[in-house]
Amino acid sequence: MSEITLGRYIFERLHQLKIDTIFGLPGDFNLSLLDKIYEIEGMRWAGNANELNAGYAADGYARVKGISAVVSTFGVGELSLTNAIAGSFAEHCAVLNIVGLPSVNAQAKQLLLHHTLGNGDFTVFHRMFKNISQTSAFIADINTAPQEIDRCIRDAYIYQRPVYVGLPSNLVDLLVPSSLLETPIELSLKPNDPEAQEEVIETVEKLIKEAHNPIILVDACASRHNCKREVAKLVDITQFPVFTTPMGKSGINESHPRFGGVYVGSLSRPDVKAFVENADLVLSIGALLSDFNTGSFSYGYKTKNVVEFHSDYTKIRQATFPGVQMKEALNKLLETVENAVGPNYIPAPVPQQKLINSPAAPDALLTQEYLWTKVSSWFKEGDIIITETGTSAFGIVQSRFPNNTIGISQVLWGSIGYTVGATCGAAMAAQEIDPSKRVVLFVGDGSLQLTVQEISTLCKWECNNTYLYVLNNDGYTIERLIHGQNAGYNDIQPWNNLQLLPLFNAKDYECIRVATVGELNELFANPAFAVPDKIRMIEVMLARMDAPANLVAQAKLSERTNAQM
Amino acid sequence: MSEITLGRYIFERLHQLKIDTIFGLPGDFNLSLLDKIYEIEGMRWAGNANELNAGYAADGYARVKGISAVVSTFGVGELSLTNAIAGSFAEHCAVLNIVGLPSVNAQAKQLLLHHTLGNGDFTVFHRMFKNISQTSAFIADINTAPQEIDRCIRDAYIYQRPVYVGLPSNLVDLLVPSSLLETPIELSLKPNDPEAQEEVIETVEKLIKEAHNPIILVDACASRHNCKREVAKLVDITQFPVFTTPMGKSGINESHPRFGGVYVGSLSRPDVKAFVENADLVLSIGALLSDFNTGSFSYGYKTKNVVEFHSDYTKIRQATFPGVQMKEALNKLLETVENAVGPNYIPAPVPQQKLINSPAAPDALLTQEYLWTKVSSWFKEGDIIITETGTSAFGIVQSRFPNNTIGISQVLWGSIGYTVGATCGAAMAAQEIDPSKRVVLFVGDGSLQLTVQEISTLCKWECNNTYLYVLNNDGYTIERLIHGQNAGYNDIQPWNNLQLLPLFNAKDYECIRVATVGELNELFANPAFAVPDKIRMIEVMLARMDAPANLVAQAKLSERTNAQM
Repeated sequence: MSEITLGRYIFERLHQLKIDTIFGLPGDFNLSLLDKIYEIEGMRWAGNANELNAGYAADGYARVKGISAVVSTFGVGELSLTNAIAGSFAEHCAVLNIVGLPSVNAQAKQLLLHHTLGNGDFTVFHRMFKNISQTSAFIADINTAPQEIDRCIRDAYIYQRPVYVGLPSNLVDLLVPSSLLETPIELSLKPNDPEAQEEVIETVEKLIKEAHNPIILVDACASRHNCKREVAKLVDITQFPVFTTPMGKSGINESHPRFGGVYVGSLSRPDVKAFVENADLVLSIGALLSDFNTGSFSYGYKTKNVVEFHSDYTKIRQATFPGVQMKEALNKLLETVENAVGPNYIPAPVPQQKLINSPAAPDALLTQEYLWTKVSSWFKEGDIIITETGTSAFGIVQSRFPNNTIGISQVLWGSIGYTVGATCGAAMAAQEIDPSKRVVLFVGDGSLQLTVQEISTLCKWECNNTYLYVLNNDGYTIERLIHGQNAGYNDIQPWNNLQLLPLFNAKDYECIRVATVGELNELFANPAFAVPDKIRMIEVMLARMDAPANLVAQAKLSERTNAQM
Repeated sequence: MSEITLGRYIFERLHQLKIDTIFGLPGDFNLSLLDKIYEIEGMRWAGNANELNAGYAADGYARVKGISAVVSTFGVGELSLTNAIAGSFAEHCAVLNIVGLPSVNAQAKQLLLHHTLGNGDFTVFHRMFKNISQTSAFIADINTAPQEIDRCIRDAYIYQRPVYVGLPSNLVDLLVPSSLLETPIELSLKPNDPEAQEEVIETVEKLIKEAHNPIILVDACASRHNCKREVAKLVDITQFPVFTTPMGKSGINESHPRFGGVYVGSLSRPDVKAFVENADLVLSIGALLSDFNTGSFSYGYKTKNVVEFHSDYTKIRQATFPGVQMKEALNKLLETVENAVGPNYIPAPVPQQKLINSPAAPDALLTQEYLWTKVSSWFKEGDIIITETGTSAFGIVQSRFPNNTIGISQVLWGSIGYTVGATCGAAMAAQEIDPSKRVVLFVGDGSLQLTVQEISTLCKWECNNTYLYVLNNDGYTIERLIHGQNAGYNDIQPWNNLQLLPLFNAKDYECIRVATVGELNELFANPAFAVPDKIRMIEVMLARMDAPANLVAQAKLSERTNAQM
């Protein structure tokens, strides 16, 4: 074939990047486009239950595989994605947001089509998306379409942000040269300015040489911008204690002897707080310092000795080096840092986490404290662990991840319901990588209700690698802690959650309810339960106002900020 | 109380307009605001299952009560509403879209709060919403806040469009003079220019005088801009035959002897098509001439004798009269139109609808044709009848509505899943108006999956006035007709739909499956079934490719438009 359709072209490009599941919903402006997915061996159309969930799924898939794609239809489909796409923008996830548009001809005539605002304006939704996209293309010309698509894929990957591509329904069947596919899309970062980088390395090494108590602090963008390997090496070579933020959790192997815990400003464990704030040098990697990630900006270390490595700049103390990207800078630093570690530095023992519960009677009711302490023992190397904004995202901070864990939590954007969709995306990505890889979701009963139908997609694809822990605490506990403990608006309609898997026609499944310490211990001790051979829902019964201590403290800080004059 | 909180002020204003159910979800930037709802007797917080559904519910409530309100939280909450708000914009529904913002102080400091994009830009979502709102207010000053709120409510009502109001979390507890509430918000339309209106009336009456075969064609905006009474009077006085568009259905009493049917251009019944296109004068009221509303723009009448009455202008043949609003113009016309009807006009009998099925064996499988012909006999005066975009919205065209029906269907915007949310809003509105008022939903098994959790809200509020007809035809039939009849992307995961009501903990409920002509006949003949005393789900089993004839024809036209070069 010397020519292929434009529709096939875009999916071949994605296939080259190992994007083999495409998320989204059909709509009449994208149907011809979707036909092309079936032409490519090994590629599948997820067929989500709604667009918001599809967007969340694409975000989850991108966090596992580095980039993803979602397809929706003009107007009604794409607008349902805005929340998910904004989340991917805020949290640095590469999602190609492909929208099936009306034909070029219909647009030119300003036809009063369905799925329009009725005012002949066909660019309005594109304009809205520009606010939450790294770049975009509103394709109208078949001749430049392949380059435009390549540019969009490239920018999504490089910047790890969502990118909008509008494809008119009549263009997807037009032909483009298939030889274009022979040149891979250029995905490497542009090199740093050598002089600026040299100055950065020199200054950092000088600071390292002088430091007595240096630490490394790993945040979200280390994972998202593909620097986990560099961070691990830096720790190995320097033997500096390494901490993560809540959002950065899983950015470093937590079994590493130099791993010291999770730093959340004033909400950290006291030993972690003291250790971090006593540091005379902080090497911060990929920071995203939002309120929930920092205990409401309660960082206690001194900015005078902080080096911030970011995806697009470096900051040393008060000096900014625009364009010095962390990936290359860290690799450069790794070449010589061994010699920079000075005689002042004597590796001190790092704080140790409590991972064993105080003894409790088997019939004692489960608590958040017990759950989050116990759960570490059940995690396995390679797990993907997903925690919803709420008690889960805060509770998980006190667990320890095994090596090679992928942690997924929307700490900055914090859209409740996100994780159910993200679990779908992560589970389908895991199926592609290794079917024995477990995907473990912790979601509250309140958040589950927003996006529950995506469990149906897990059933459709027989994602038997998923464990869905539903923490049933009778409503929006995180909000009860912030404001309105007994307010009606924090109540939800109670559901019979364990009826969900049969309702959705799950094939191999198991439904379990645990309410006591004994039941949880038994479950985690059961080796059969640990084998990912069916979809499992585990409803964990917890008291209404029981919450991880760090969430209780954060909630108080948030209420104060919201009321502030 | 000489002063009340700003939060209470806004809800008191809504209460004055008989908005007594507020839709939405809690989020930490709106919790203090929501407290105020509970201070007002007779007002309730719906507490929807997700924001998109809440937006759909607000739209449905507005179609019953004239205006509605939805409350969400900054970023994550509001963005999930965009699709619903755009739909309300396209279809002329007055929805006050209230968003709880971070405190003025947090905004000024550009704090990197959760629910932001992480770039300190707090106005980005407001900017996005401006594209799909009639007007907006991003409130920052307590002194002007009441006037701003009044202006927004006024414009939503007058223009029947959504309006955006951003309320910072710290302002809702500040005080404003309660005496402001003593002056009702001015909701009357500004008067038409007398000279322009006089010219309109004179010209229209001259055309009426000369006409031999005049007709009246009622479209969506007649209902939405509160002109149903004027239309009914015009028909009574003139005795002109009256037709509706699909979107205008329920704009006129269909039992009226002068009602001739639904006109959809070339997709109309042949007798209706011939009658309308033979008219020498068309009085078009509140037209919204989208593709699905016109059989893909296949109107066959001559524009030379059309008078278009719109909410903001009038058009007579080729002349536009900007600012001549239909409400006042129609009332003015009603004063003298009796004398204008000339001697040329002899009322001809109008086309008659087939409402009785050809006999079929009781064990014959149900068809769309049988269902939509039969269902008219089961409808009752005062019903609210809601049809999803798909086989339902097209099938309903061949039914006859009893007097005083409210028909709800999103013919222009056409977002699938809309009706489940809209049913929640309409059912809660009906509870307020008259608990014996029935709310009847027809939704496909595919569309249901997008928004299914809103049935839980119906259960929570014990909306025992609802009938949920789920047309189970195994996937997206409307799309199979347009493109990809056997494509995987038009398949859905099959659900056990009749397990939904028990899953959601419905209190009084009934689940029924009908698959044959006999079962349907029996159901409709059962007087107990007709009494709205529980939530009912009726799963109607239909063949995969069975569809109303007008949908089959429309789908062919749509496919052609989408592929057009």
